[in-house]
Order: sequence, then C-alpha cells, then structure tokens
Amino acid sequence: MSTLTADPGTLSPALQTLYAPVAEELAQVEAIFRREMHHPHPYVDELVRYGCLLGGKRLRPALLLLTAKAAGKVTSEHLTLAAVVEMVHTATLVHDDVLDNAQMRRHLATVNARWDNEASVLLGDYLFTHAFHLASTIDSVLGCRLIGHSTNIVCEGELRQKGTRGQFDLGEAEYLQVIEAKTAELTACSCRLGALFAGLPEAKVEQLDLYGRELGIAFQIADDLLDLEGEEDATGKSLGTDLEKQKPTLPLIHTLREASAEDRRQLLELLTTEQATPTTLLPYLNRYGGLEYAKQRAQEFAAQSRGRLDCLPDSPAKSVLQMVAEFVVQRSH
Amino acid sequence: MSTLTADPGTLSPALQTLYAPVAEELAQVEAIFRREMHHPHPYVDELVRYGCLLGGKRLRPALLLLTAKAAGKVTSEHLTLAAVVEMVHTATLVHDDVLDNAQMRRHLATVNARWDNEASVLLGDYLFTHAFHLASTIDSVLGCRLIGHSTNIVCEGELRQKGTRGQFDLGEAEYLQVIEAKTAELTACSCRLGALFAGLPEAKVEQLDLYGRELGIAFQIADDLLDLEGEEDATGKSLGTDLEKQKPTLPLIHTLREASAEDRRQLLELLTTEQATPTTLLPYLNRYGGLEYAKQRAQEFAAQSRGRLDCLPDSPAKSVLQMVAEFVVQRSH
Repeated sequence: MSTLTADPGTLSPALQTLYAPVAEELAQVEAIFRREMHHPHPYVDELVRYGCLLGGKRLRPALLLLTAKAAGKVTSEHLTLAAVVEMVHTATLVHDDVLDNAQMRRHLATVNARWDNEASVLLGDYLFTHAFHLASTIDSVLGCRLIGHSTNIVCEGELRQKGTRGQFDLGEAEYLQVIEAKTAELTACSCRLGALFAGLPEAKVEQLDLYGRELGIAFQIADDLLDLEGEEDATGKSLGTDLEKQKPTLPLIHTLREASAEDRRQLLELLTTEQATPTTLLPYLNRYGGLEYAKQRAQEFAAQSRGRLDCLPDSPAKSVLQMVAEFVVQRSH
Repeated sequence: MSTLTADPGTLSPALQTLYAPVAEELAQVEAIFRREMHHPHPYVDELVRYGCLLGGKRLRPALLLLTAKAAGKVTSEHLTLAAVVEMVHTATLVHDDVLDNAQMRRHLATVNARWDNEASVLLGDYLFTHAFHLASTIDSVLGCRLIGHSTNIVCEGELRQKGTRGQFDLGEAEYLQVIEAKTAELTACSCRLGALFAGLPEAKVEQLDLYGRELGIAFQIADDLLDLEGEEDATGKSLGTDLEKQKPTLPLIHTLREASAEDRRQLLELLTTEQATPTTLLPYLNRYGGLEYAKQRAQEFAAQSRGRLDCLPDSPAKSVLQMVAEFVVQRSH
C-alpha cells in the first residue's frame, strides 16, 4: 500500500504553519513517539507502526507544547508527556474504530478492517500501557496521576456514550457531559500538563485546563456535525456511523426538542427503524435549525475557551492557541 | 441471576486457608478494590461491578502480600498495589474473553456474552486506566513504572500469541517466551513489588521476581493443559478454545515434535481443518506423551520457582509461597 509509506510525522502544510512556534519541539516529540513505537518482534512491530499512522493532526501534543511555551518554558518532561498524550489518543482511536466498526480513518484502512477486531483490541491495549509506562519515566508521579485520571475519565465517557445508544430523549446537558469526558478531558489534560510542568500557579493552570476543556467540547460538537454533513473524501473517514450506532448528537437532540409532535413522531420512527441517513434526516434538521444550533453552540464554547487565554502574556504561542480555538469550529463549514 | 449476588470477595475455603497469613491484608485489599470499582453512573456501575466478579482467585494480590510479609513488612503501598495488580489482571481477563469469544468464566456469563464485545472492550479499558490511576496515588513513581512496564509486556505477549495462531511449527522456546510475557510477567511483577516495597535488597528482589516468573510459567502450562483435559463443570469456563483459536500449546508442540512423519501429517491436517477437539487429538497426545511432557515441564518450573524462596527466612508466609508453587501445577490433575 503506497499510503503505508507516508510519513506518519508529516503534518499538512496548514498545520505546519499553525504549529510554527513549537515546530522544533514537535519534531522532538515525533522522534520520541517513533523511538517508542517499534518492536523487535515483526508481528508486533507491523501493527504498532501502522497504528501510529492513524493519528495525525497531533493536536494534543501541540496543545501541550503551545501551552508550555506560552507559559514560558518547554522542558524535557513536556516532550515526554506530549508523546504520552498522543499515544493515549491513538489507543482510543484504535478502540473507537472497533466499536464503530469503521473501515477508514485518515484515508487509511482501520486496524480492524486491515487485520481484525482482535488485533485492534490488543494494539489499543499495547498503546495504553506503553503510554503509561512512558509517563512513569519522568521523575514526578504527578504526570502519571494526571494521565491516569484523565484517561480513566475518557473511558468512562466512552462507556456512558455506549449507554446512551438509541436514547433519543437524551438531554443536551447529558450529551455535553459525555463529550466532555470522552473528548475534552484529554485536551484539558494536555493543557494542564503544559501549564503545570512550566511552573504556572494553580489558578492559571486551572484556566488553561478550562481552555483545553471548552476547546475539546467545541471540537467534538464540530466532529459530530461532520458525521452528518461532511464528505468522506475530505474527512478521510467513514461517515454516518453515529446514526448507524444510534448515537444521539446535538443537531438531533435540538431538532427533537424543538420539533412539532408530528415531526418528532416521524423523526423518532426514522431513527428507531435504523433507516436514518444524513439525507433522510436533512429536512427535519433544516426545519428546526438543528445543524445551525449545533454550530452556534460549538462557537460559543470556542469563544469561551479563547477567553481563558487572557491569563497569559501575549506571545506567538498564545496567538496560535487563540487560532486553534477558531480553527476547531471552522472544520465543519 | 442468583450468581450476581455472590460476594466477589468470597474466596473458596481452600484458598482462605492457604492465604491465612495475609487474610487481614487481603480483606483490606478487597475493600480498596470495591471502593474503587463502583461508579455514580448506573450503566458504568453495573458493568464495572460485574467485571469484578470475573476474577476471583486473587492470586496476584496474594502473591504480592505474601512476598511482602515473608520479606518482613506489609505497608499501605502494598495494599494499594495489590488492588492495582488485581485490576490489571481483571482488565486482561475481560479483553481475553472478547478475543477468545468465551461464553463462561468462573461459572458466570462473560461480559461479551451478557452484554457485547463493545462493552467488554470499554470495560477492559476502564479497568486498565483505573488501575494506572490508582497506582499513581502512592508517592513513589516506581510503582507506576513497574506496573506500566509489566502491563505493556503482558499486552506484547498477547499480540505475539495472536501472531502464533495456526503456527503449529512453533518451537517450545518461543511458546515459553509468549507465556512468560502474557502470564508470568504480572505474577513476577506482583512479587517484585512485594519485595521492593518491603525494602529487600536488589539481589533478593530479583530472586522473588524469578519466583513469580517461573511460577507464572508453570501456572500457564497447567492452564493450557486444562483447556485440553479439564471439565467445564469443574473449571467454570469454556474449554477447547485454544484449539478453536488455533493456539499451539505445549502438549501439541511436543507431540508434533516427537511424532512420526505420518502421524505429524495427520495431526496437522486435523489441526488446520479446524476439526480438532480434545477428543480427536487424544490418541496422538497419548501416543507421544504430550500431556505428560507438559505436566513435567510445569513441575520443573514450579520446583525451580520454589527454590528461589531460599533467599527468605522461614515464616508462615514463605511456607504458603512454597505451597502455591505446588498447588499451581496440581490444578491440572
């Protein structure tokens, strides 16, 4: 496969420009990531290397490093922890693809599609445990504690999300709790680690945690929108899987909440007979502004997160963090 | 289900007697385990509690505590770490049951049988990450480092085992490497943690690591034997799954190595057409003493592990560790 030869560390030109203030540090993180992600046993090595191709935007390490730099100082602990958060993220992606039965990610066959579900389960476990071991190589136990805590909350969020399948009466508040846990906890943790290991006082660490948290929520709302209105070619992953998996997302939650009794009845029938596709849902979503509402909520969270950066002095790294907050909601347009 | 009401902390009378020198400490570990394994969200709580019922023999915490006691001192770190190793072990069991498509464990439906594979994947992830977080609550980063390292080797062993499926020309040495990684690494780690946090010097810590390692190898050979010659009623789990999954185990490896060209051909045909059952294999295993050979190897490893205890002064806890080394190979008789 020619795609296999693509360099996993190659960021798109747009991202390279965006991440410029930490370009050198990101390259060092990439070197750590590659050093860790190979194995003397050929079968293990092939899987581990392939798994690494599935990440790609390196958003979490970039957030960690940018926060550290904006706070004044990138240390060797930051570099290790940035590789750790990316590895944890990759582990969750590999297991997500099993749960979603997804066939494509980043224009590549998923591990479950190319090998099988068992390989995905074991590779995810390998990445989780490798990440934890890597976190423990720094001298402070605090890194392990924050990574362990946040990763556990991510898993809890995934479990809660599974519990909401087919629950189309899910409220917006509970939807937000679930995406905060499954997605925003790890971006919050990345920013917290960046701030904490740069020596910021607790009040600022807290603000930067909130920056990462609100950013993560905005990101996930936008990602859920993409599943409804994106194009597979552009996103490079299977779409419509949320509907297949009966996951209630914000455009639907809003539409069901606002709809007339009759529209609500029809929509629920569509959803519960599993015949819902982005196309069959569109008339209802349009009628009650479901997509627009979700976009607006994403923008609100992004704006809120942007405001959290006020605690930092101006710097190129801070400007990038501000731009990231704009960029995450533009993905869905 | 009446089985659901069974107390997860109830050990069989035989194990209660065996573990007597650390009975009080094991009860404290059980209390930690239960305190950690519940969750405010009902769906998460139900799964997490059920998962805890699937462990049961509490071998790893017992090894950790007995090693600590035999070394002179059980500390609060030992109690936490004992709960951690049991949680890691439970996570691997839950994921193993997905991989093996097993329906029964400890006379209970497995998580994948009672819920589905997705629930198992997520529950295993939850347990892994919870274990790591718990490990990080002790002040020394050394606990995280050893747990992270060993758990990663366990996952590597599982991956390597998957790579050996259908590889009936697997040598005994590679089989032993795989079971050392997937099983013995965690029993070795348990004993190492017990010894290390009791303050033993490195040379003795190393001996106790080897005790746990050789014990684990003996245990796994015996467990593989059970899959071929056990009775489902007695073992409380699905049998014959190694054959279904085309896993070469020691009785088969020995038989294929010793067999005449014609028997080898017939046996390979049987194995590769997936019609092999314990019953159809028995004539070949008997002809070349495959089961006997595996039993003998298990006994050798158990005897070797027993010898490692010579570095400790005599004590009730040491006597139990010696008995465990005998007990572990008697399971298959």
